[in-house]
Amino acid sequence: MKHVIPGFKASAVASGIKKGSGLDLALIFSEKPAVAAGGFTSNKVKAAPVILSLENISDGSARAIIANSGNANACTGKQGLRDAQVTAELVAKETGIRPSEVLVASTGVIGAPVDMDRVAKAVPGLVKALSPKGIPRVAEAIMTTDSFPKIAEFEGMAGDKPFHILGIAKGAGMIMPQMATMLCFVLSDIQIGIDELRKATSASIDASFNRISVDGDTSTNDTVLVMANGMAGNGPLGVNGYSKFQGGLSAVMCELATMIVRDGEGATKLVEVVIKGAGSNAEAESAARTVANSTLVKTAFYGQDPNWGRIMAALGRSGIKMKEEDVDIWVNDVMIVEGGRGKGLSAEKEAAKRMSGEEFSVVVDLNQGQSEFRILTCDLTHEYVTINAEYRT
Amino acid sequence: MKHVIPGFKASAVASGIKKGSGLDLALIFSEKPAVAAGGFTSNKVKAAPVILSLENISDGSARAIIANSGNANACTGKQGLRDAQVTAELVAKETGIRPSEVLVASTGVIGAPVDMDRVAKAVPGLVKALSPKGIPRVAEAIMTTDSFPKIAEFEGMAGDKPFHILGIAKGAGMIMPQMATMLCFVLSDIQIGIDELRKATSASIDASFNRISVDGDTSTNDTVLVMANGMAGNGPLGVNGYSKFQGGLSAVMCELATMIVRDGEGATKLVEVVIKGAGSNAEAESAARTVANSTLVKTAFYGQDPNWGRIMAALGRSGIKMKEEDVDIWVNDVMIVEGGRGKGLSAEKEAAKRMSGEEFSVVVDLNQGQSEFRILTCDLTHEYVTINAEYRT
Repeated sequence: MKHVIPGFKASAVASGIKKGSGLDLALIFSEKPAVAAGGFTSNKVKAAPVILSLENISDGSARAIIANSGNANACTGKQGLRDAQVTAELVAKETGIRPSEVLVASTGVIGAPVDMDRVAKAVPGLVKALSPKGIPRVAEAIMTTDSFPKIAEFEGMAGDKPFHILGIAKGAGMIMPQMATMLCFVLSDIQIGIDELRKATSASIDASFNRISVDGDTSTNDTVLVMANGMAGNGPLGVNGYSKFQGGLSAVMCELATMIVRDGEGATKLVEVVIKGAGSNAEAESAARTVANSTLVKTAFYGQDPNWGRIMAALGRSGIKMKEEDVDIWVNDVMIVEGGRGKGLSAEKEAAKRMSGEEFSVVVDLNQGQSEFRILTCDLTHEYVTINAEYRT
Repeated sequence: MKHVIPGFKASAVASGIKKGSGLDLALIFSEKPAVAAGGFTSNKVKAAPVILSLENISDGSARAIIANSGNANACTGKQGLRDAQVTAELVAKETGIRPSEVLVASTGVIGAPVDMDRVAKAVPGLVKALSPKGIPRVAEAIMTTDSFPKIAEFEGMAGDKPFHILGIAKGAGMIMPQMATMLCFVLSDIQIGIDELRKATSASIDASFNRISVDGDTSTNDTVLVMANGMAGNGPLGVNGYSKFQGGLSAVMCELATMIVRDGEGATKLVEVVIKGAGSNAEAESAARTVANSTLVKTAFYGQDPNWGRIMAALGRSGIKMKEEDVDIWVNDVMIVEGGRGKGLSAEKEAAKRMSGEEFSVVVDLNQGQSEFRILTCDLTHEYVTINAEYRT
């Protein structure tokens, strides 16, 4: 765990944008032009930095990412767009690159203007502090209600050259299908074409951040940015090299996604919901998402109660084809429902024991076909309510 | 408020099906055949009593409703269906009617077999206790996590004859679109044809129970039953009489639906979410349901926080056509968002004052068209989590 990628530097400072005195403004800088790909929120209400980054990443290259916590710069209208642009310009000026080479990401309260004086004051110091060892500080600076920074690494070989992937993320609330209030930045020294990087990025997001859910809400700011600077010096990747890179990128994103759910607001349990035997992939996904997002199911997880009736009810309203009498349900290795009927109290007691741990799986076999979908979710707790009833006040 | 409908009797006993010693088994009996219409859960997993009642009401007539709390008789397979049927037979035998004239409704824990010995033992006493004044006891007996019994009445004129409508309901959790874990029984002495009764029932359900949401879950047992015995002696209703009856039925159901949300599990606030200016009715409904079911929005209601960013984010992921810069939002009379931008801290402080009451409205104008939808919801509280993490244990 070196937390370093050759050719990338990073830094973070406490600018005062976020309440308190913690780190809240971070910069990642690539010494040379890097290929860049991203994934952004599917919400129709997109924050200003998302709109700007979508534009700046469209040519497939970037040099810098500036990110802040404490203010989402969302629902801030034309002023918000100008503020995001000015932020990019401040970084560009101080580092000697073009503003269009800067990507911007923000997370925090929606609807409040960014205090640009603080940003302007902080950027020179941010650039001065750039260091190859700065990435972990960036992971800290982007935290909002996160309780720990999220970092994951991978090392692999492309031909005879070693390459590295280093990813950081923040999550916590509003985590749901098609991403979440989450930011994720991934750096690599691999030499890769933009089409390959885009393909690997989409596939990895689909296998990771699109398969987690904390509360069913989707934020205005979700952003995944991947930059690769080619310093590994591998030649053309080829099929084999590509698949190694994509595997590594997926592994890093899956690790970060899992950390996000484990650190879901107020969460005490990490639960994998698996739907098997669905008639189609779409039905498997729909059933998994409905179960994983049901507040009744999630409170039962919190109560360590194998309340399979709530799971059946969620399946029944998920819009999929199903037959009650064909459904089997397990908690880990304990079957609690067979052919739509409960297996009785002793099975439920065993299942409750499994649920007393911090991690468990709920597996549903619909026995209608061959399709399967997995999603990670967490429990719904008193602490979730506390955090979200008091977030702004 | 007489809580009596000529020709109907009712009773309730403590049979022991429900934990504790409260009323849990109830009977409503019509002295003469009545026309009957109903509405049932849209969940594909339907409880045994729902399946039986769907069949028994299909001919448009009924004489009795037997209802229990404490056990939903859902996910109980063939045995559950037999138990529902035997329950109907017990009532039929004791009252001298046919089993197919008996409607059955259950609410409570899913997946456990009904203790039929207790039912068999209780039915004779239940029939003996039948009384014209028994309806309020039925309203008590069907309660689960409800904190108060729900009763509503209406009196109107059909031609020169007065008619009466008396409704009772139970709700609490799993309340959502297309009904909920709710039971509702409505009795009337109006003389009405079965087609008219069915039409009035559907229209009234659509205007009431289909426009409330507590937690976004839909139960396996939702049942609305309406019986009319014709004792008001009005002749053919005509257009005018019909519309008076439907108005009265809607009023009774809306009153009960409002009580259900007010008594939502752990709820401290009743919130009307109104979407105006949508491009179509379907979009208005979709936007309203997404806002009303968002756990982030509902926890903000609890926190009395006019966190309009969460409302914007919910609108943005609801799948409707919208423009961020066209959205206006009010809390009661206080405009907090105009053209997609916050109106500032003083407006939010005023709005927070409105939200400190037990009831308020959130009005969103999308400014895209003429369509509108209203839905009642409640806040998501610590108490909701407590109730649902501990419901079975």
